[in-house]
Amino acid sequence: MFSNKKIKEVLKKARTIWSLDHASSLMGWDLEVNMPKEGVSERGIAASEIAVLRQKLLLDGELSKLLDEASKENLNDYEKGLVRVLRREIRIARALPPDLVQELTRITQEARIAWREAKYKDDYERFEPYLEKIVELEKKVAEYLGYEKHPYDALLDLYEEGLTTDDVEKIFSVLESGVRKVLSRVLEESRFPREHELENVRYDVESMKRLNMRILEIFGYPLGARARLDISSHPFTTHMGIRDVRITTRYEGFDFKRSLFGAIHEFGHALYELQIDEGLMATPLANGVSLGIHESQSRFWENMIGRSKPFVNGIYKTLVENLSFLKERSPDDLYLYFNSVKPSLIRTEADEVTYNLHILVRFRLELRMIEGDVKMGELPAVWDDLMDELLGIRPKSYRDGVLQDIHWSMGSIGYFPTYTIGNVVSAQIRHHMLKDMPDLHDKVNKLDFNEVRRYLREKIHKWGSTYAPKELLMRSFGEEINPGPFMRYLEEKYLKG
Amino acid sequence: MFSNKKIKEVLKKARTIWSLDHASSLMGWDLEVNMPKEGVSERGIAASEIAVLRQKLLLDGELSKLLDEASKENLNDYEKGLVRVLRREIRIARALPPDLVQELTRITQEARIAWREAKYKDDYERFEPYLEKIVELEKKVAEYLGYEKHPYDALLDLYEEGLTTDDVEKIFSVLESGVRKVLSRVLEESRFPREHELENVRYDVESMKRLNMRILEIFGYPLGARARLDISSHPFTTHMGIRDVRITTRYEGFDFKRSLFGAIHEFGHALYELQIDEGLMATPLANGVSLGIHESQSRFWENMIGRSKPFVNGIYKTLVENLSFLKERSPDDLYLYFNSVKPSLIRTEADEVTYNLHILVRFRLELRMIEGDVKMGELPAVWDDLMDELLGIRPKSYRDGVLQDIHWSMGSIGYFPTYTIGNVVSAQIRHHMLKDMPDLHDKVNKLDFNEVRRYLREKIHKWGSTYAPKELLMRSFGEEINPGPFMRYLEEKYLKG
Repeated sequence: MFSNKKIKEVLKKARTIWSLDHASSLMGWDLEVNMPKEGVSERGIAASEIAVLRQKLLLDGELSKLLDEASKENLNDYEKGLVRVLRREIRIARALPPDLVQELTRITQEARIAWREAKYKDDYERFEPYLEKIVELEKKVAEYLGYEKHPYDALLDLYEEGLTTDDVEKIFSVLESGVRKVLSRVLEESRFPREHELENVRYDVESMKRLNMRILEIFGYPLGARARLDISSHPFTTHMGIRDVRITTRYEGFDFKRSLFGAIHEFGHALYELQIDEGLMATPLANGVSLGIHESQSRFWENMIGRSKPFVNGIYKTLVENLSFLKERSPDDLYLYFNSVKPSLIRTEADEVTYNLHILVRFRLELRMIEGDVKMGELPAVWDDLMDELLGIRPKSYRDGVLQDIHWSMGSIGYFPTYTIGNVVSAQIRHHMLKDMPDLHDKVNKLDFNEVRRYLREKIHKWGSTYAPKELLMRSFGEEINPGPFMRYLEEKYLKG
Repeated sequence: MFSNKKIKEVLKKARTIWSLDHASSLMGWDLEVNMPKEGVSERGIAASEIAVLRQKLLLDGELSKLLDEASKENLNDYEKGLVRVLRREIRIARALPPDLVQELTRITQEARIAWREAKYKDDYERFEPYLEKIVELEKKVAEYLGYEKHPYDALLDLYEEGLTTDDVEKIFSVLESGVRKVLSRVLEESRFPREHELENVRYDVESMKRLNMRILEIFGYPLGARARLDISSHPFTTHMGIRDVRITTRYEGFDFKRSLFGAIHEFGHALYELQIDEGLMATPLANGVSLGIHESQSRFWENMIGRSKPFVNGIYKTLVENLSFLKERSPDDLYLYFNSVKPSLIRTEADEVTYNLHILVRFRLELRMIEGDVKMGELPAVWDDLMDELLGIRPKSYRDGVLQDIHWSMGSIGYFPTYTIGNVVSAQIRHHMLKDMPDLHDKVNKLDFNEVRRYLREKIHKWGSTYAPKELLMRSFGEEINPGPFMRYLEEKYLKG
């Protein structure tokens, strides 16, 4: 895959950086899953030292020189991808003055603690000065990074290479009215319930673990050989490489779909990393290309597969075998439990109909923050009004409103839209998969996922970061990001289904 | 603890190296405990890249310059220790030509595979050419490192700073005749059995885990807060720092003392790291000073405490509570089970009477190998003769003889004597502890280990690597390494007990 001589020199340097990333990933995973509590201080020292060292290796002048030289040669797509990915990282790292990065690191460390306290005490004012400062610094970040039309473009690009404010506006111009129409009809027709009795039923944690393992096995997750499933308070995926990918889920003891769909969602992320071409191993291309494309994979498995009728029918026996309290439930009953729809205050608990409206609230606010168009003191009220306007409900506390997400305290402004990119792209993939594989539903019903995995591998996974997100979609599906399939999917499932 | 300005600059550089060690330790632990099988190739790449990077940071000219400058200033003991430890590391790294290191790495990687096969097939010839090559390279290592009297001194020093062939000869000149005398009398008098019925009794693994946890808790092991207990095929200890120390033990399902003493042995190693002064955190002094001193800690807890009568009496109730098949056994019966004595072929299964004779076999052979005084083809026969001479038994296979240990295949020549240093020093510590704490037996019987931990902390642990091994013993106990207390301990326990 790599034959150019200059590129091989680049890879040699990049391999050291990759190795530090390998170590950092493991350290992050271990922190959540295994680390003794008081290990946190030493882990913090090691993590930040390694981050600084990584930055030094990345900004090593020789690497840049090699990349410049390599870029002038006749390169294949993988080689071009390598140059693109490294140059992009270097460009971002170079653009930001160390002082700014340091201040951002310091303030976000404090802000995260303040946010936790503020949320716990339902006290927005405790967090407000930190958010004010973070927004101010993020505006500077945008200026240093540069942009063509809107400072928010620079921030979006950090999480989703090439994504612009215009792109997101265009998507929401379709989703906003479309989703609200679907939502009001679903709520009227009430075939899909707002709540379900099973949400309150307790499960045995050991049985639930076995069920999750069994379902992951059915999906083709290589547990033990190349993958793990563990427990953490928030589900997440880490990859140490193509052959060592680890997911977690949670076991709260009731409402088993939370544990199940946690595992299925993370499996989608994991499969992306697991199916990257082995020739890209230990290179900067051995990563999913962006947060949005990554989320399209997790949402594809969680929603398009996991919450689909053929899957629920197919997996019904396995569910009942492992959770005996499901004996008195029909497959259709489970389908409705998995797909209840209700305007709710909390994004992470939102169903697939309302989810993007939660993102829209945040996108509108972030734009206004970056434009300086809203005072921080007004933010909670603006949040509540937007929730009212889009979802028809008002938070009764900061905790359920503006303080619910950790992202802003971490300085992640421009991150939220990648969730909607994920939802939209997952429906595009489903659309094309159905065209190319007309018996998809049948296969899913038979729990035969070989072709599904193969399809995702060929269209998305195997490339790693070789192509930028937009180019990847164009090459694999001949189209841009397009909310059409997502809207049709919602209408079909919730209005005609 | 560190006030000198130059030293602070040294510490800044050393902290990056420490961080890579932190990551490497975690990667090593994870490999044994958690890693999906196929992750091994990427872990290998990352580990060796990080090792190379660490070497680069260590050999950074600025660090050496800073150390030279610092060494001329008025330093306190910690600062002197820091300079000593880093200079020693740099000296060793500088002395060995990269070609030699690379060849040794390559050959030992192959040799380890060859050794495993050879042992499995009981085919010494399969391993012989590798051992021949390794010995040849180790001789070169000794020449490059330099020595005063004997090339083997240079190799010993790698594992035990300052230890010489003369030191080891002196120790064995006492142990050889002394231990053999004790052994022959124990075998004659037969109060201590050669075998015990309990060796064949199966246990429930979950109960055994609970028992190990309970006993570690009684010893004061901070499980969850600063420490873990996990499972691996060979018990080991890793520390990511002073506040994150992890041990493992094994659960074979029978002969429960193997699992129990595995855990207790590793606890001894762990406590050393856990009780290092917090002021040394994230510095090169935050490590036990040598393999021998480390082994003195593990052997102290395993043998001096764990296999002692007061402990067996004190812990009896806990044992019976967790392993119900012990109900029909008396404390004295358990004491004999824990202390059976038998000349056996396998070092790792040896009791505390015969253990050092196994080391003596290896020491004699290593000396002759390094002196070029034995042909590799003769090694098995010489091994068997030595076993016969010292222990009165002859291996019936290579597997039970010359091929039993992994060490030589890893290029670890000069390592074995540190086991005997550990045994000898553990008895010296016991001797002084009894003098300073006359009610030690009583405390152990009451399972009150506060004072024992405090004593070890003050005398050994808190210093980390501040003082070289010999200096540490001299400062803390006013004496050199001395096999006298070990011999008196054996005689007292096995002949008079």
